[in-house]
Amino acid sequence: MRKIGIIGMGNVGSALAHTLISQGVADSYVFIDTNESKSQADALDFEDAMANMKSFASITVNDYAALADADIVVSALGNIALQHNAGEDRFAEFPFTKQEVKSVSKRLVEVGFNGILLVITNPCDAVCALYQHYTGLPKARVFGTGTLLDTARMKRALGKAFSVHPKSVSGYNLGEHGNSQFVAWSQVTLKGQSIMALTTEEEREALNLAALKGGHTVFYGKGYTSFGIAASATRLIEAIFTDSKEVLPVSSYQESYQTYLGYPCVIGREGIVETPSLQLTAVEYQKLSASARLIASKVQSALSEA
Amino acid sequence: MRKIGIIGMGNVGSALAHTLISQGVADSYVFIDTNESKSQADALDFEDAMANMKSFASITVNDYAALADADIVVSALGNIALQHNAGEDRFAEFPFTKQEVKSVSKRLVEVGFNGILLVITNPCDAVCALYQHYTGLPKARVFGTGTLLDTARMKRALGKAFSVHPKSVSGYNLGEHGNSQFVAWSQVTLKGQSIMALTTEEEREALNLAALKGGHTVFYGKGYTSFGIAASATRLIEAIFTDSKEVLPVSSYQESYQTYLGYPCVIGREGIVETPSLQLTAVEYQKLSASARLIASKVQSALSEA
Amino acid sequence: MRKIGIIGMGNVGSALAHTLISQGVADSYVFIDTNESKSQADALDFEDAMANMKSFASITVNDYAALADADIVVSALGNIALQHNAGEDRFAEFPFTKQEVKSVSKRLVEVGFNGILLVITNPCDAVCALYQHYTGLPKARVFGTGTLLDTARMKRALGKAFSVHPKSVSGYNLGEHGNSQFVAWSQVTLKGQSIMALTTEEEREALNLAALKGGHTVFYGKGYTSFGIAASATRLIEAIFTDSKEVLPVSSYQESYQTYLGYPCVIGREGIVETPSLQLTAVEYQKLSASARLIASKVQSALSEA
Amino acid sequence: MRKIGIIGMGNVGSALAHTLISQGVADSYVFIDTNESKSQADALDFEDAMANMKSFASITVNDYAALADADIVVSALGNIALQHNAGEDRFAEFPFTKQEVKSVSKRLVEVGFNGILLVITNPCDAVCALYQHYTGLPKARVFGTGTLLDTARMKRALGKAFSVHPKSVSGYNLGEHGNSQFVAWSQVTLKGQSIMALTTEEEREALNLAALKGGHTVFYGKGYTSFGIAASATRLIEAIFTDSKEVLPVSSYQESYQTYLGYPCVIGREGIVETPSLQLTAVEYQKLSASARLIASKVQSALSEA
Repeated sequence: MRKIGIIGMGNVGSALAHTLISQGVADSYVFIDTNESKSQADALDFEDAMANMKSFASITVNDYAALADADIVVSALGNIALQHNAGEDRFAEFPFTKQEVKSVSKRLVEVGFNGILLVITNPCDAVCALYQHYTGLPKARVFGTGTLLDTARMKRALGKAFSVHPKSVSGYNLGEHGNSQFVAWSQVTLKGQSIMALTTEEEREALNLAALKGGHTVFYGKGYTSFGIAASATRLIEAIFTDSKEVLPVSSYQESYQTYLGYPCVIGREGIVETPSLQLTAVEYQKLSASARLIASKVQSALSEA
Repeated sequence: MRKIGIIGMGNVGSALAHTLISQGVADSYVFIDTNESKSQADALDFEDAMANMKSFASITVNDYAALADADIVVSALGNIALQHNAGEDRFAEFPFTKQEVKSVSKRLVEVGFNGILLVITNPCDAVCALYQHYTGLPKARVFGTGTLLDTARMKRALGKAFSVHPKSVSGYNLGEHGNSQFVAWSQVTLKGQSIMALTTEEEREALNLAALKGGHTVFYGKGYTSFGIAASATRLIEAIFTDSKEVLPVSSYQESYQTYLGYPCVIGREGIVETPSLQLTAVEYQKLSASARLIASKVQSALSEA
Repeated sequence: MRKIGIIGMGNVGSALAHTLISQGVADSYVFIDTNESKSQADALDFEDAMANMKSFASITVNDYAALADADIVVSALGNIALQHNAGEDRFAEFPFTKQEVKSVSKRLVEVGFNGILLVITNPCDAVCALYQHYTGLPKARVFGTGTLLDTARMKRALGKAFSVHPKSVSGYNLGEHGNSQFVAWSQVTLKGQSIMALTTEEEREALNLAALKGGHTVFYGKGYTSFGIAASATRLIEAIFTDSKEVLPVSSYQESYQTYLGYPCVIGREGIVETPSLQLTAVEYQKLSASARLIASKVQSALSEA
Repeated sequence: MRKIGIIGMGNVGSALAHTLISQGVADSYVFIDTNESKSQADALDFEDAMANMKSFASITVNDYAALADADIVVSALGNIALQHNAGEDRFAEFPFTKQEVKSVSKRLVEVGFNGILLVITNPCDAVCALYQHYTGLPKARVFGTGTLLDTARMKRALGKAFSVHPKSVSGYNLGEHGNSQFVAWSQVTLKGQSIMALTTEEEREALNLAALKGGHTVFYGKGYTSFGIAASATRLIEAIFTDSKEVLPVSSYQESYQTYLGYPCVIGREGIVETPSLQLTAVEYQKLSASARLIASKVQSALSEA
């Protein structure tokens, strides 16, 4: 049957649990948090919902052993206080998360977890690399939400500008889930046309800013972001369970760049099933390479320190 | 089509919006909060989810005029800080909420809202009474989640103790959604038997404490409760939309007690469609009367001050 | 992950598949039918739906080997033509189904199926007994929809008569899923009252007739029944997957009657987890015994012939 | 609240009702069929499901007056026997359906129906034109499932060939929902590449045949098709209710061709909100023109006879 572990029951982990449980995505859950009162509180709050919900699920709290046979473990841990930094740099959380990732990986290895490890923890791409290194799980089975959320924001901004559903906008944001990510405009189409034909460069820059500004409005308006990222992770989880082979941009290990970074992949029961090859422009290739180098260097530093 | 307004986008309002939107319950929403940055942040966060969700909905922020044609308005406003009081008394929030309710009612009347007003705001029963008084809406169209959440907690505790689904436990908690509420044990059955036959009085008292203690664990573990109450409100909202006529314990105006209090009612498109008559024990009648008197006196004070 | 086999893709099997797939209940399905064109047609028709559905699933056609690791196999095979008989007796299908059951059981044993076998095939109770006998699966893991559908019809009739949701009617139909089944009126409550207090014996008889007549209207109006039985089976399947421990009346092996018959049970991941003990009236006990004897004798005949 | 009428409760109408009701898409339904026993049977069968379903809805049978305030009416009527013809031509049903459409339109006008009329009835494009003509409803509020099903089949075939989810294939089938429809290969992309770059012309022809052959397998395997078309209609209905503005290929009135035909449109609460302009190849334009001329001439004949 379907079993999901969530490590880190902060705003993101609990919003993800809420999305999954209210839609009946899995049969049982394991909530893990260093603050046991919080994960216990969330578990009981969900149990107080079961008499009035359409779905049922069992919840285990703070028991790593219960992750042994989980199909999917989601890393949602973080230290949101560190994200409130002047440069709005997701690497500001790395000094905290790189330690946590090491310790969580050790526990996962100890219990023999052998499923798929889905990473939300920031900086997402570097954290994926550390998890894969420390757990020794196959690269195809460790990947992150990465630019799936950035892509959703791009689609939200374009959808509003052109009065269409975000799902009717095709295309991807690539690279680091962080400041060096970018929209691969050459891939973006809507209403049957390339965005290149529909807009000027200035207009595209304005659309990109609208996408980013939305993220800031959420973050500064409530101190964290939760529903957008929970929806991204839920979509990936359903693709894994049903082996649906949707093509979605995720933080995945890319051989050609020798690092994890946000790039569209085919998602199925075995994790990353295939990586399509996009026809990018020269400028887009440069941006992607630069983003890749940044991630790789951060990962290398983290591993050499350790 | 289906339109829901939510007034108060704190932990409860936003968890309710999350439940409703992820299940596609309504077509459009109006989020209202005195902290406009918070409601704007939640709206954008949901919009950032739409590219990856199964449902779509439109969201309007802080526009009372948009409530004019809402089918249902939910009052989820509150001041959670006031609930952290020694006596754990939900009336501690009343000095704040009774002012807010007056002001919100005025706005609802101004825009001509004529749908169903569903109250989560505490103290739930007294707040229902004030909303009904100030808006002049028919009593059948103003009601509250009341003891639906207390009932869910009782079912959770009994479900765990007897290893059955909470939905396979029948029965109700009655009276004030507060310290004077009680389980009407005479109505509780599970596995085809009355709880009276299955347990001693001491065991029932222990089950009641387990139900209450769970609520405390949630409240003190995360500082608020959200998923359980969101599921309660969602169930009522679906019963209203589909005119399902489910019998659910809600805070409703009871002629025989001349006040709002938690009691099972038939819920449909017109709100409270009918109030069944339970066969309670003498002790249960006394508890219910005492609870009713408490609520009525608090309402009277609030109205006489105003 | 979640895997379901359906044996028999007639009106019932395909309506069940439709319910399950549109709600995303399982990840993969195996459709089996002696008419391979029909199961192939249904599989392709669902695949033609996937581009526009909210859920995804994989479908395998007519491959018994694929049932080896199924969590649940549903027997939905039958010969509807045989149900169009003067006495409206579900045993009229038995000469056909008892042969099929033997042959299907053999195949299930051969592939090593070891999950839960859920029986819709009529006569449901006798067919359960044969499946359990021929497969050798534990009794707790072979059970049938039985009187869950009769109970739903009773709730529909009472719900209409008293203007409440069928789910707000408590109680059970017991015994054979056939002509000897009966409403255990002593267990039926609605709006907080026993049906005994709300109705006369004549009124109850009229309500029972309304429940039965509805079934006939469906059967003669379209030549088969499908949505009601598909919903019954789906509810059981979800209770199994989520280990929800709902109490539902199913065709289950009852030690005290030494036969399968419709009686409320606690349903979970292991199948029948527990059988509560109802406090029936003397008349109800007699009806149940008579129904049990009928089923037992039919099973004995079938086994002695074989 | 949400109200849907379905005219024609054959295999398609009842599969559509099943999809809608099991997903809780609307609050109330009106089933209409010249065979009242069939629509009554389906209604009761759904009511027998309500005690075990997650959603509730009210159903009215064969009452045109109840359509007066429906948000959406779906025309699912037809005479499937006529589709079993040598040329597999959907116009074979026209002699029957063109009479029915006239009579249904009259009834809709009489009751004052003023919502959206969604057409499944074949030949879909010509039937849309007649409905629009006879009801006098705005062209934006009368449209059909058209090539949305053909597109789904194309995506199914390509998805299988390239091991991706059908939703990860972009593109459209255009023109008549019939023999003159075609894949606009210039618009088809998957895995970030144009299908033109991924395949030879022979391979595309083989993929097109696989798409068509699947439809035939369904039709000849069970005598009708139901789940694929029900999913298409459900997706359009949800786009209408939620005003989602998804871009979907539907049978819509195209000014430039002066006829209804399958072409991508933006779908919202007002029906057809906008028609994007595709950049087709010269050959595709010719095919589309030819298909348009065929539809227009059939409509003209039907109207001149009448």
